[in-house]
Amino acid sequence: MIELHYVATANGLKVAIMLAELGLPYRVVNYDLFGGQHLTAEFRRINPNSKLPAIIDMAPADGGEPLPVFESGAVLMYLAEKTGRFLPTAPRDRAVAQQWLLWQMAGLGPMHGQAHHFVRYAPEKIDYAVTRYTREARRLLNVLDYRLSEARFLAGDEYSIADMAAWPWAGGAALIGIDIAEFPSLARWHAEVGARPAVAAALAGKETGVPPEYMQERAQLTAEQWANTFGDRMHAAASSHRADA
Amino acid sequence: MIELHYVATANGLKVAIMLAELGLPYRVVNYDLFGGQHLTAEFRRINPNSKLPAIIDMAPADGGEPLPVFESGAVLMYLAEKTGRFLPTAPRDRAVAQQWLLWQMAGLGPMHGQAHHFVRYAPEKIDYAVTRYTREARRLLNVLDYRLSEARFLAGDEYSIADMAAWPWAGGAALIGIDIAEFPSLARWHAEVGARPAVAAALAGKETGVPPEYMQERAQLTAEQWANTFGDRMHAAASSHRADA
Repeated sequence: MIELHYVATANGLKVAIMLAELGLPYRVVNYDLFGGQHLTAEFRRINPNSKLPAIIDMAPADGGEPLPVFESGAVLMYLAEKTGRFLPTAPRDRAVAQQWLLWQMAGLGPMHGQAHHFVRYAPEKIDYAVTRYTREARRLLNVLDYRLSEARFLAGDEYSIADMAAWPWAGGAALIGIDIAEFPSLARWHAEVGARPAVAAALAGKETGVPPEYMQERAQLTAEQWANTFGDRMHAAASSHRADA
Repeated sequence: MIELHYVATANGLKVAIMLAELGLPYRVVNYDLFGGQHLTAEFRRINPNSKLPAIIDMAPADGGEPLPVFESGAVLMYLAEKTGRFLPTAPRDRAVAQQWLLWQMAGLGPMHGQAHHFVRYAPEKIDYAVTRYTREARRLLNVLDYRLSEARFLAGDEYSIADMAAWPWAGGAALIGIDIAEFPSLARWHAEVGARPAVAAALAGKETGVPPEYMQERAQLTAEQWANTFGDRMHAAASSHRADA
């Protein structure tokens, strides 16, 4: 049994997709992110970074204690290695899949994330930052389009965890004013992956019981919601292990 | 033989450290990033994202064509899996190492990178962005400090690619006005890892012939240097595969 600690963000959806693809039994623990439910000492023992999603494998391969894993990309790798699915084992194909997974984790996700912040969340409109991140978001979609003009999936002929990682972020581009129809190969891939039953089910929240509300509209956060996600309470949680903090 | 396509940034240093640790034969191809040497069609075939570092494995395990790998984290994983070193194989230990590697790639690196941008590179001083990213940089160092208050290395008892990934970014914190002496466990780990001969050699540029100049001072970029790194030429490279771009 896998326990999925979840909120319906793009990063959460990656793991919901993977679990749906695998057909593994799992249960969902939903968090109210704006309400600050992730800012507990208990959750910090699962993820010291206080971010969602994370999993706990209640039946790890070594038969030991339940095993928590955080960072969506690491969760995808862990589940792929546990099940032998959606990540090639031949070194060449594996390197290609891993580099695109890492590219999503280090580039597409964080930089689109910053664009979402300055377009959708920041209380002030800061032209420099909006321009910087929406341009970078577009550059990264061009990189994706280039790759997908050469290959059916990010790893090549086979659908992999790299596609599961990139798909929710590509789909969120509309929220920062980018129409992925501008990118023909990316749009072709986005439709093909989106038509998979597991992806459609995860997106609709059928697997998790929670539709992706965080991906749907501009957020107008209250002071408390801001503190819990971007502000004081989120920052204070990270230094709670030191008496001087 | 590994060919290392290199510039002496924090991400470049990760791979230089790993190659020094492994004692693998390799040769360095240095790039003038500000001069735009990464913006060629030839380099784009190595890394469609036009970023450094990348490697080409001239003798991949399958005996096939030279194999390019990009994204510093994926390069570390590739070299670890090729050599069987610095990444545990037991699923539990491996999950821990991978989650901290991914945390560096998705969090510590990109967010410190944004802090460096707004503190050191941006032509305007934008208070909101400077505050946002230096606070987040500090939060992430607190997370690192928490982990290293519980374990000798990020993966546990053993030094791994997760440490190699995080070490150069932690060391760069001084450039954004953060003294890692504020974080006792992080400082202990930073000194211990930094004392390793391979790390010291890579940092001094002994392995690469290029000292880490990009990490040393505030950058005052010319218009052309800006275009090559953050501006028009960098963005144009990503859409050069489409005739309409």
